[in-house]
Amino acid sequence: MTSPPLSVVSLSGGLDSCVAAAVARNEGFDLALLHADYGQLTENRERRAFNAIADFYGAGRRLVVPFPGIRAMGGSALTDPGIPLPEGDLEREGVPVSYVPFRNGQLLATAAGWAEVLGATAIHVGFVEEDSSGYPDCREVFLRAFEAAANLGTRPGTRLAFHAPLIHLRKSAIVRLGADLGAPLHLTWSCYQGEEEACGRCDSCLLRLRGFQEAGVPDPIPYAHIPPELRP
Amino acid sequence: MTSPPLSVVSLSGGLDSCVAAAVARNEGFDLALLHADYGQLTENRERRAFNAIADFYGAGRRLVVPFPGIRAMGGSALTDPGIPLPEGDLEREGVPVSYVPFRNGQLLATAAGWAEVLGATAIHVGFVEEDSSGYPDCREVFLRAFEAAANLGTRPGTRLAFHAPLIHLRKSAIVRLGADLGAPLHLTWSCYQGEEEACGRCDSCLLRLRGFQEAGVPDPIPYAHIPPELRP
Repeated sequence: MTSPPLSVVSLSGGLDSCVAAAVARNEGFDLALLHADYGQLTENRERRAFNAIADFYGAGRRLVVPFPGIRAMGGSALTDPGIPLPEGDLEREGVPVSYVPFRNGQLLATAAGWAEVLGATAIHVGFVEEDSSGYPDCREVFLRAFEAAANLGTRPGTRLAFHAPLIHLRKSAIVRLGADLGAPLHLTWSCYQGEEEACGRCDSCLLRLRGFQEAGVPDPIPYAHIPPELRP
Repeated sequence: MTSPPLSVVSLSGGLDSCVAAAVARNEGFDLALLHADYGQLTENRERRAFNAIADFYGAGRRLVVPFPGIRAMGGSALTDPGIPLPEGDLEREGVPVSYVPFRNGQLLATAAGWAEVLGATAIHVGFVEEDSSGYPDCREVFLRAFEAAANLGTRPGTRLAFHAPLIHLRKSAIVRLGADLGAPLHLTWSCYQGEEEACGRCDSCLLRLRGFQEAGVPDPIPYAHIPPELRP
């Protein structure tokens, strides 16, 4: 009996990465779950979601990695309380102030190192290029370039396939996919501001609420506020 | 008056990265110096070397970044006291046990993020492909692939040129180049084991000693032991 193939899944605790984990499991992978603590303001809440999702999937291999350098270098509203988080405008152009410089590059590099140590053959991430971010490091063209670099920069014999199953999905399709795969959406956390109740005002909440609304799926987490036009 | 261009230099405190910093300075760059603390056994000594070299160059921008994930994921004799460091054989084949899984990938990702925050246009590293390592993440083919990924994964307008001026040099040529550029070789530290005196037995010491010997330059740091065939 051979063991199933192993994938390192980058799991923030948010909706997208939870659905990416569900996809990896559905594809037959054992899951090694990696969580990045880069000093984001809601890290405690995200880590709670990470552990709850990891428990749900019975994942024994978990690695919570602090990235103190990300906070130290600054440059993002997610890690610097002095940069205000914007509210309520999904139509803004350009790279948002919540962008953390090359965060996904730093995260993927760690995932690749851990995958090499574990002998994993895949890395799954919940990157979404389409309707959500404007982050340069969520784009498929970047992911493919990084995949090439990671395979050149690891031991001969390491073969890492990078999977980003959501990258061209709209949020509503991600919600539907997660619901179809039985992903524990009730354990996920997306809000950039709240810890007990999601704020319902930050970009991340608005995107999530719109996704659930368009999918016709009730969002199972508590909100302090839901804009009238995004109510189910 | 325009300011000089800025380069993020990855500076371990060893010989190679010190010479890479000297090259960057010689090319007219201001230096932003990045040091990785990944739990290597000789980190205290390396950090001392880093700060001494940074003082020598009067570099105000310094970032010491802990990488706790690298130690946590294990897999290297440099970070795991349970894996013995080999002594005295530079002719070994394959990837050495001192290889830290995808360390340079993790380091370059951090350098790219910091460069993006600072608006730097270059990254200098002391990678050496030729006679030293067998590390897959020291090869030029990897560096070029990573450079492509980093430019795709950072803000539009970010243009990062990755410089590895030593990558095809033998150690003796690196020593000569450093001496020619007035690099503070007396402040560098290469030993994987010692802190007050270099051991003169680990791979890193042997390579360094052979390099100085072939270059005909006296190695200015103290050794506990120098193999007879490597004495100046």
